[in-house]
Amino acid sequence: MKLTFHPLDLKLKHTFQIARETRTIQNNVIVLLQDNGEVIGLGEAAPTSYFGEDVNSVSSVLAQSADLLNQSDPFQVEDITNRLKNEFPKSAAARASIDIALHDIIGKKLKIPLYRLLGLNKPESKITSFTIGIDTPEKMGKKVEEAKDFPILKIKVGFKDDIEILRELRKMTTAVFRVDANTGWTPDEAIKKLNLMEDLGVELVEQPFPVGSIESLRQIRRHVKIPVFVDEDIKDSKDIPAFSDAVDGINIKLMKCGGIREALRMIYTARAHGLKIMIGCNIESSVSITAAAHLTSLVDYIDLDGHLLVTNDPYRGATVDKGKLTLPDGNGLGAGARSGVPLPSM
Amino acid sequence: MKLTFHPLDLKLKHTFQIARETRTIQNNVIVLLQDNGEVIGLGEAAPTSYFGEDVNSVSSVLAQSADLLNQSDPFQVEDITNRLKNEFPKSAAARASIDIALHDIIGKKLKIPLYRLLGLNKPESKITSFTIGIDTPEKMGKKVEEAKDFPILKIKVGFKDDIEILRELRKMTTAVFRVDANTGWTPDEAIKKLNLMEDLGVELVEQPFPVGSIESLRQIRRHVKIPVFVDEDIKDSKDIPAFSDAVDGINIKLMKCGGIREALRMIYTARAHGLKIMIGCNIESSVSITAAAHLTSLVDYIDLDGHLLVTNDPYRGATVDKGKLTLPDGNGLGAGARSGVPLPSM
Repeated sequence: MKLTFHPLDLKLKHTFQIARETRTIQNNVIVLLQDNGEVIGLGEAAPTSYFGEDVNSVSSVLAQSADLLNQSDPFQVEDITNRLKNEFPKSAAARASIDIALHDIIGKKLKIPLYRLLGLNKPESKITSFTIGIDTPEKMGKKVEEAKDFPILKIKVGFKDDIEILRELRKMTTAVFRVDANTGWTPDEAIKKLNLMEDLGVELVEQPFPVGSIESLRQIRRHVKIPVFVDEDIKDSKDIPAFSDAVDGINIKLMKCGGIREALRMIYTARAHGLKIMIGCNIESSVSITAAAHLTSLVDYIDLDGHLLVTNDPYRGATVDKGKLTLPDGNGLGAGARSGVPLPSM
Repeated sequence: MKLTFHPLDLKLKHTFQIARETRTIQNNVIVLLQDNGEVIGLGEAAPTSYFGEDVNSVSSVLAQSADLLNQSDPFQVEDITNRLKNEFPKSAAARASIDIALHDIIGKKLKIPLYRLLGLNKPESKITSFTIGIDTPEKMGKKVEEAKDFPILKIKVGFKDDIEILRELRKMTTAVFRVDANTGWTPDEAIKKLNLMEDLGVELVEQPFPVGSIESLRQIRRHVKIPVFVDEDIKDSKDIPAFSDAVDGINIKLMKCGGIREALRMIYTARAHGLKIMIGCNIESSVSITAAAHLTSLVDYIDLDGHLLVTNDPYRGATVDKGKLTLPDGNGLGAGARSGVPLPSM
């Protein structure tokens, strides 16, 4: 297989702010993997500084992976992804881009969609949440107004006046709220705020505390009815057992775990522990969002809106209408270049 | 899909005795699943009384599953096997026969071997252990002599003079020994015997205690160097977390867990816990032994000798030469009727 990769700079509709950072652009990498001069598989890396990756580190890993891929059969996903994980353990987004492209090639070669390759039903159109980043109260209100078609909103919290803003937003919409503190709270703050949020239609809370706060998670679950999920705490399947009695669920992201293969491992491990599962994303184009969308029949909560937050996605794939996420037709991922936009060169 | 099934009575080369039972025949069921009048998938149920199944219960579950299968697409393995598990939670061997036949159909339709469908490398020829059942010291010696080509023997223990017999067998062969007590020991007995076995080339011990003896398992691991595996204790992936700090590894069997799909869940869950994995079997024909053989690249220890213990296996599939287990060529399982033996009718 021949590997090429190209930067993909995604422009954000709104400045993206969460508890720990602010951005106006997301620098991703698109991977093209060509099998024997025939089928081209698409992949994408959406690196985040939080997990120590960026376009440079992704490009470096991809360049170093070219030889292995050149000598490999795309069907040997387990072996290829394990070898890449051994070699580049901290480069999950880079590895995810290869894993996704491999799955795309296999589906295209077998002429079946990815979900079918994985033994899954065609995912029903399920509702994805839409993310409202942190901003001034006025701008957060404006964003909620713009998102009025979405039945579920994921509101970023984890700052001083979050509860007051949430109260104001509640007046504007009947949408279900999920809140994501992105490590921003203390235990006392979390208990107080989540108890207040019970009356504001909050369905679940994500990552209330800094990574590793297992005891604090156990503690708030004794005082709070809203289900507690972890995201930053759980990178891959090996991280799950330690949190299994401390949370209600986990957020799985292809970019955090290294791709579809590891996402399946996480799903099975989480289910063995009786945990609920959300599938989430970074800010991504339709390529990797669509890859994740093939797994939605296996999860409870969907947060695949990364491609909706950008203005210049050159790819098409899973579409969202009034929150309903629908897979494209087609083999493999079913994603591709938008009409009139050429694929980057091999 | 049209389902038919037929009894398969396997005659044992030797009376099979383990710590809790004795048998001369193994009554299995062969499943044929035909997709749209074309491809036929093969499956097999090898029920055991220990898990409350027999030919009658398997036949009853299969008859009740015909309608669901008649209306289903074979590619929807996840959904079909989940529905069967909900409906027939205690009928793992019956469910495994359907799961195996579905995987066989998919592989045949896509014209790829099962291991390739699962994203795995072609399993290298790895060594399977060969089982020596409980018998008189003379007969156990004779069995070990007959098994002189096998580099690894799994010796059934869990009876009064087991350590003395093992000492005698050790004089006859340099083969690696694995011992399986099939729930037959007390903790004091286990510690004493395993300490003695350390000098007898015993690689691991399986299921020393009655099901549920988690505290005893923790206890012997503090006193014994030989790695401790559980078999009867762990039926499916949900059973793994509770034992994860009490054992070194688990034995996965398709007939115990419900098939290939659940075996993968168990493999991923066990790895997330850092556990070692053995893949084992009941007394089975080459059909379901071959299904399990497709997973061997994912495990550490192989115990797939069920088809070697019978005299009238009408099927061909994975072969064993001097302990080396080799997959057949061919799509799906690659198993089929032996030359000159017709498949049962649809």
